[in-house]
Amino acid sequence: MRTRAAVAVQAGKPLEIMDVNLDGPRAGEVLVEIKATGICHTDEFTRSGADPEGMFPAILGHEGAGIVVEVGPGVTSLKPGDHVIPLYTPECRECEYCLHPKTNLCQAIRSTQGQGLMPDGSSRFSMLDGTPILHYMGCSTFSNHTVLPEIALAKIREDAPFDKVCYIGCGVTTGIGAVINTAKVEIGSRAIVFGLGGIGLNVIQGLRLAGADQIVGVDLNPDKVEMATRFGMTHFVNPSEVEGDLVPYLVDLTKGGADYTFDATGNVKVMRDALECAHKGWGESIIIGVAPAGAEIATRPFQLVTGRTWKGTAFGGARGRTDVPKIVDWYMDGKIEIDPMITHTMPLEDINKGFDLMHAGESIRSVVIY
Amino acid sequence: MRTRAAVAVQAGKPLEIMDVNLDGPRAGEVLVEIKATGICHTDEFTRSGADPEGMFPAILGHEGAGIVVEVGPGVTSLKPGDHVIPLYTPECRECEYCLHPKTNLCQAIRSTQGQGLMPDGSSRFSMLDGTPILHYMGCSTFSNHTVLPEIALAKIREDAPFDKVCYIGCGVTTGIGAVINTAKVEIGSRAIVFGLGGIGLNVIQGLRLAGADQIVGVDLNPDKVEMATRFGMTHFVNPSEVEGDLVPYLVDLTKGGADYTFDATGNVKVMRDALECAHKGWGESIIIGVAPAGAEIATRPFQLVTGRTWKGTAFGGARGRTDVPKIVDWYMDGKIEIDPMITHTMPLEDINKGFDLMHAGESIRSVVIY
Repeated sequence: MRTRAAVAVQAGKPLEIMDVNLDGPRAGEVLVEIKATGICHTDEFTRSGADPEGMFPAILGHEGAGIVVEVGPGVTSLKPGDHVIPLYTPECRECEYCLHPKTNLCQAIRSTQGQGLMPDGSSRFSMLDGTPILHYMGCSTFSNHTVLPEIALAKIREDAPFDKVCYIGCGVTTGIGAVINTAKVEIGSRAIVFGLGGIGLNVIQGLRLAGADQIVGVDLNPDKVEMATRFGMTHFVNPSEVEGDLVPYLVDLTKGGADYTFDATGNVKVMRDALECAHKGWGESIIIGVAPAGAEIATRPFQLVTGRTWKGTAFGGARGRTDVPKIVDWYMDGKIEIDPMITHTMPLEDINKGFDLMHAGESIRSVVIY
Repeated sequence: MRTRAAVAVQAGKPLEIMDVNLDGPRAGEVLVEIKATGICHTDEFTRSGADPEGMFPAILGHEGAGIVVEVGPGVTSLKPGDHVIPLYTPECRECEYCLHPKTNLCQAIRSTQGQGLMPDGSSRFSMLDGTPILHYMGCSTFSNHTVLPEIALAKIREDAPFDKVCYIGCGVTTGIGAVINTAKVEIGSRAIVFGLGGIGLNVIQGLRLAGADQIVGVDLNPDKVEMATRFGMTHFVNPSEVEGDLVPYLVDLTKGGADYTFDATGNVKVMRDALECAHKGWGESIIIGVAPAGAEIATRPFQLVTGRTWKGTAFGGARGRTDVPKIVDWYMDGKIEIDPMITHTMPLEDINKGFDLMHAGESIRSVVIY
């Protein structure tokens, strides 16, 4: 079939909107009509050429929601008409990782996914002249139709609006999951969140959901305060307004250090600060942000020997097929909010405007509606 | 009273054996006759002058066992004749730290202990000319008699031999506790231990006790193999004999990385290797060793984002008054071994020979018997 897609033809160039060929689903695969997709910093990381593992041409996008159109042989858990969210971290429920209680990093299709291919080593996408186009993060939601493995689709309830719950495909789950799955924050905790962008806001509402008592937001941009407060931030700190060092200031503010700190900036210096303002004896610091290639974190080992723990999280530690439908329920039940974070919507033709808004810092999340 | 002690008069100098004055126990304090004390690298760290926080003159030693001679007013949990092990990490059971489920770092007397003083801000030791002598780590077991706070003494069974269980006051508990309290190693785990000195050997027997399936020891000195094997090591790796990088070699040996890795070297480069050969998704690395002042650990944040956890431990995460008596029981019941690790014993007069043996790498543990 033919479908409409935004193609990253070359690193650093705007996406090109074009018709592409899409082969139907093979064994274990599912054809999905994408109804909406968010535009995430990770897409931009690859589009811009900053990602050393980026490959082109490719159809980016990994934060979508849609409807099953057709299933390939052997698919048993989905049928046409089912509403789904694509998962860049699949959940096969059979591999060593899925069967281990401490991780969500299913490895069933990792090597081919990393090469921009389906599990059988081929691509379903090609240009009209026959040039193959690579998949991206196993999702390629910047195409109106896409093909995914069955294990990379979470089935969700049918009354959930695509243009909102698509955000659960990455940002919402990453932020909330970092709190609930990775940190396992307890009621009454004190927490500090570095970076009040889309991920940071979701960490904040995750902390509110988990019953944290003190939720400190740290950002250089005071324009972030209003929205962060809406999502549950109790204290705001602008590092540029702190006299002296930031870490002792935050330790003092949290009465000895935070029980949990989260880096949602990707800046390795901030990651160090986040660790060091965690409470002696039991504070845990969670790295969510993606650092530039080659960047390293550092600290004195004394920080760990005196009881701090340094962790990271990917996709919020969520097992997608199991956890994403629950988070959709939380949204539908009003336990979490998404709507105010979707600041812009646009048709696929205007997708490059979404990237412009991201660069200008004007959007929290732009969503393409097909 | 007067007692016999080895005094660190000046940084970098041998200890001087002399009679010293010792004031009796004040409120909440206990006078203990030390019967045996181990000589630990931490004593040497301070004696040598490498410890930036070292103060002199002081009576070092923190790994002892002895008998209560006299108790001060208000002491209720101990009486003359009780057998005890001094605790450089006390357990008051009342402070914010003791009441927190995730830490053992009781802060009740921390500031005065760090200054070499008793909780009331004074020292009980002085030279015969009246010059005050500082306490050390709240213990000062290099004196035949010493005074400690009640909360810094673990009461132990009376049939346990002092010249063996003194080692539980630091090395044994640190190594075994890192496995049991900090890492919480599960049956069937794979583990790697870097450094096969006194701490590393105790990590190894902790892993055996916890039911680990694979216990890899890493050391540059092949002479360590026999003893480590005796304590439970299943595989030995000498980095100088590995072709290519050590980390991928160890990842391969442990079939994807170890569930738990332990640094017992104090070398920050080794700490990085220890983290990076922990298993993707769930591997945890525990820093036990004390690094040189100012040294920093580093890694790419990707290592944490893909599921590795970096932790540290002090006194093996043990709550001394609660856990040390249990470890004494484990020794008396034959669950753990100590005797083969006590390679040398000597009278107090020869204590400097114990430091010489440590430097020569000839001892695992030297114990002074009073």
